[in-house]
Formats: sequence, C-alpha cells, structure tokens
Amino acid sequence: MDEFALIEKFFTRQPTSRSDVKLGIGDDAAVTVIDAGFDLVIATDTIIVDTHFPASTDAHAIGHRCLAVNLSDLAAMGAEPLWCTLALSLPSGDADWVAAFVDGFFELARCFDIALIGGDTVQGPLAITVTVHGRVKSGEYIPRSGAGSADGIYVTGNLGASAAGLRHMDDVDHSPAEAFLIHRFLYPDPRVKEAQSLFGLATAMIDISDGLHVDLTRMLHASGVGADLDIGQIPLSPELLTCMTEEAALELALTGGDDYELCFAVPIERETELQALLSSWDCRLTRIGQTHSSPEIVWTYDGQVYTVPDTSFRHF
Amino acid sequence: MDEFALIEKFFTRQPTSRSDVKLGIGDDAAVTVIDAGFDLVIATDTIIVDTHFPASTDAHAIGHRCLAVNLSDLAAMGAEPLWCTLALSLPSGDADWVAAFVDGFFELARCFDIALIGGDTVQGPLAITVTVHGRVKSGEYIPRSGAGSADGIYVTGNLGASAAGLRHMDDVDHSPAEAFLIHRFLYPDPRVKEAQSLFGLATAMIDISDGLHVDLTRMLHASGVGADLDIGQIPLSPELLTCMTEEAALELALTGGDDYELCFAVPIERETELQALLSSWDCRLTRIGQTHSSPEIVWTYDGQVYTVPDTSFRHF
Repeated sequence: MDEFALIEKFFTRQPTSRSDVKLGIGDDAAVTVIDAGFDLVIATDTIIVDTHFPASTDAHAIGHRCLAVNLSDLAAMGAEPLWCTLALSLPSGDADWVAAFVDGFFELARCFDIALIGGDTVQGPLAITVTVHGRVKSGEYIPRSGAGSADGIYVTGNLGASAAGLRHMDDVDHSPAEAFLIHRFLYPDPRVKEAQSLFGLATAMIDISDGLHVDLTRMLHASGVGADLDIGQIPLSPELLTCMTEEAALELALTGGDDYELCFAVPIERETELQALLSSWDCRLTRIGQTHSSPEIVWTYDGQVYTVPDTSFRHF
Repeated sequence: MDEFALIEKFFTRQPTSRSDVKLGIGDDAAVTVIDAGFDLVIATDTIIVDTHFPASTDAHAIGHRCLAVNLSDLAAMGAEPLWCTLALSLPSGDADWVAAFVDGFFELARCFDIALIGGDTVQGPLAITVTVHGRVKSGEYIPRSGAGSADGIYVTGNLGASAAGLRHMDDVDHSPAEAFLIHRFLYPDPRVKEAQSLFGLATAMIDISDGLHVDLTRMLHASGVGADLDIGQIPLSPELLTCMTEEAALELALTGGDDYELCFAVPIERETELQALLSSWDCRLTRIGQTHSSPEIVWTYDGQVYTVPDTSFRHF
C-alpha cells in the first residue's frame, strides 16, 4: 500500500469535526480560523521507538501516547485544544498497525475535540511527531515563570507509576499492580480540563515529563524563586507501593518521568479557592511544598535534607 | 552535551524577531497572535536520512531543506510565512553538526521572516519534522481544487534538475553542470513570494514535490477537470541538458520530484495579467498545457501521445 492510500484510508476518517477548520487534510496545507480575542498556543513533541517506548509497545497505545504527551504541553499552558498535525515515520505500510494506531489516536482526539488537520507519512524508523494547537483568551496563558515567593507547590495525580510501568513492559507475566503501572505508562491522561480551570489562580505551571525534580526545578528557575519541598508529601499510587519500597517509589516519582501530571504554583492564601475546584477534577491534588525568595531548592524527607539522585532522563 | 544545553546553545539565538510571538522557545508551548481578518495556514513535512536525502548530505543543506520543503507547502496555498516548530531527531549530540544545521535553517528563516517558536530534540535516527504556520487574508488561499475547464496550466522555474542532482550526490568528482544540479537538490527555493502574488488569478495550485505528473494529476483530480499537456513545453535548465539527453531529462522532470516549484491554473483569458506579474518574480514561468472539462489527462510529445513512466516516488 502506498503512502497516499494509507492516508486516504485511515486519516481522513477522523471523528472530530470543527467549524474553525476551513480546509482540513488533503491539500498542501490546512486552513483554520482563530476567533478574535484569543491567543494561539502551539507545541510539538516527538516520540521514537526505543528512546521513548519499547519496540513491543502496542500500536493503539502509541497512537494515544503521541497525542497525549502533546496535549499535556497544551495543558501546561492552560490552553483549550483545537487542532493537530501528525508526522508519522513507519518502517513499512502495515495496514493493521496503522489501523490500531489511528484508533488510539482518534479515541483520545475525540475526548478533547481536537481535529487532525494535516500530516505526513514517510518511510523510516518508527517515530511520531505531533504538533498541537490550542487557544487561550488573550494573555490568559500560564507560563513557567510566574511563581511568587510565597506560593504553594502542587501536583496533580500520582507520580512514579508510569516510570515503574515502563520497567515491567517486557515481562512475560504481570501482577494486577504491575498491569496498572504499565497502563499508566501506555495511556497517560493529559490534565487538559483541570489546567483550564487554573487560570487566574496558578502563577506558574509545567507538565511533568522528565521527572518531578527536573521539571519543578525548571519552573522555579524560570520564576526566579526557590522552594522547600517535602518528599513525604509526594503522591504515590497504592499499586506502586505494592511493587517496591516507599523509598524506591519516591525516587521514581522524583526522577522517573513520563508522568504527564501538572506541577504548578498558587499563592498560599488562595488555597481554599484551589480546593474548591477539585469537585470538577478527575484526579487528586497534593501540595508538596512552598516557594521562597532565595534561590535554593531544598527537599526534605522525615525532616532530613534529601539529595535527589542524578538519574533523570537525558537524551545525549 | 544534553538535550537542553543543545537547545539553549543554538536554537534560542534565532535571527528573526516578530511582534506576533508573545512567548517563544523555552516554555511548554509557544503563544502567538493572529490578526483579525486573517486565516491561519498550517503544514507539516518530515525529511529522513536515506529516504529523503543521502547520509552524506551536509548539515547546512539539511537545515535549509527541512524548512524549504515546508515553506513550499505554504507557498502552494499563497500564504505568508509566520512561525515554525522544529522536531529534530539526532543520533548524537554533535555540536558541530547542530551548529551547521542551525545556520542553514536560520539563513532561510531570515529570508522569509519566519520565527522558530518551539521544538523538540530527541535521540534517534536522523530525521527532521518542521511544522510551518502562515496566514492569508480571510478566505484568500489557493486550494488544489479550483481549476476551471479552460485554464492554462503553468509551472515556475525549471524541472528535473533536483532529481538529477540527487543521482550525482555521492560521485567523487562533479562537472560544473553536475555541481549546479546537486545544488538544486540541496537548496530548493520555495516560491513563497511568487505564490503570494497569485491570489485572485490562480484558480488552483500545488507544489511539485513528488514529480510534475503525480502532483499535477492530484490538482486536476481535486478540481474535477482534465488537461492536454505538451511535454515539449516543460522547462529544463541548460545544465540538465548538458548531463543527459532531452528525453531522459523530460522523464526526470515529469517523475523525478524534489523540484519544489509551483504548478497552477489560471483562466486562459487572464494570461496577460499573469505575465504582468513576472517582472517581480525571481524565476521563469511556463505554460505547459490547458484544462478541459472531460477527466482525461493527455500528455503529448512532438504531437504524439506520451505515456508517463510509472517511476514516481512512493514511500511503501
């Protein structure tokens, strides 16, 4: 099957129809409209076999994951998803693989009403680049750089489960807890809706892709503040604690990455307003520390200073 | 050097500054503004080593090429370039390679005032995906599908040189003519400015990436018309004719691809208006045929029907 037949067959059958797409897949470029009073938010992320996921990963999960990691970037800005493009490099034109991939991709796209408006399919090693477009009301995005000096530091969901799941991907058998962890790795839930409720409250936000410690450090550096953080507060799922000691679980939560949860700052005195949002959220919320005006970032565990192991993800 | 140091070092030093970029590289996503009264035009294209360019290709040329092929897609809509993202998969963090790549990329970006607003750098086989954003006044894009039944079919520039250059890339020595052809492959000139002058005149347009025959056929099918086309009119560069027979050159021009010239339709009675644009163009313009309402696409050569060889580019 050639490139064009592949595209024709699978990618034009998308489930999402949006009135702001004037011209979708099938021309040299797509044409869209953004309403007056909105800013456009744009992010791009690539996932590659053996670097970001094992070769054994199911095509359906890869389809979900390549969009989910990008939606997580939109979430980190507090943006509403609109449209995406998909650049797919495939070793061969395997129609079954593409069908499963497209199912995973479109199932998630439908959840967030994001339209696939273009792409490119080429022969090469398995790699997927998605570019996502979202919008915020003019100026109403949440950057990394706005944390104040007396803000609580919060995280959504549980951390570490995804990195633990990755370690068990190629095992022959799994316990139910391990199966849960693997599912967390394969099917991250981008916190798009939760993030959109945070504008006006969160002063800074980032998504946790490379590990809580690295990503939180980026947010604090960008904001020019430091923080005192309590390792004992880091949210862990019961399934993770079934599979390893608390100490090992915390290390994964700090450095494992692939969580796609949000980390953000909210002024301490506004915590009640933040708690009031929780009834409409699909995930838990945990305060893990507080900013201060000096640049130090200090983690403590049971009252003792804790040095984070330097095991976080690096490409080169 | 790790991913973040690479990005920090090279990609933030971009030469283009645009007032419509509120937040550029360095956050989870970029934030931009599009003026009221404009549509957004979005395209994405991937190039991969050994599929789209030989492994011996200079990094500077790869930097130019990955942006040029995307700008050519914007050109095909008649759009004005605004911003782009860059997803770069690299086997290693070779700083010299990245420096040359970035030079090639930014030199072309500067020519068209397009700002790099985000990206992702990952470890993997050499592959580059660029997503470009442009704008047209509301509704003023040129689709593939608008050709009428009495339109002239035109192409910009010369065809076939790039495909011929690719064949000589790994030769030890080159004649001056061969060096010219190789340069045409390595450094395509996207016809962005020429294309922008065509709104209101061109009824349909496509860029020639997969070969004149395949791309023109797409445009005619999308428009629901056929055409009579004269192979003898296809524009060829003297350097191409130095290196091969006219017949071989014409076959490359029809099926070779990688030209990144434009093919478009203009009503026959408006050819004088089209000719009047030429004084501001950087390339030649040639009429190669005319549309008709029946669906047949007929190529002739010296008055005889010519069957195009089925050698055009296919990924799978």
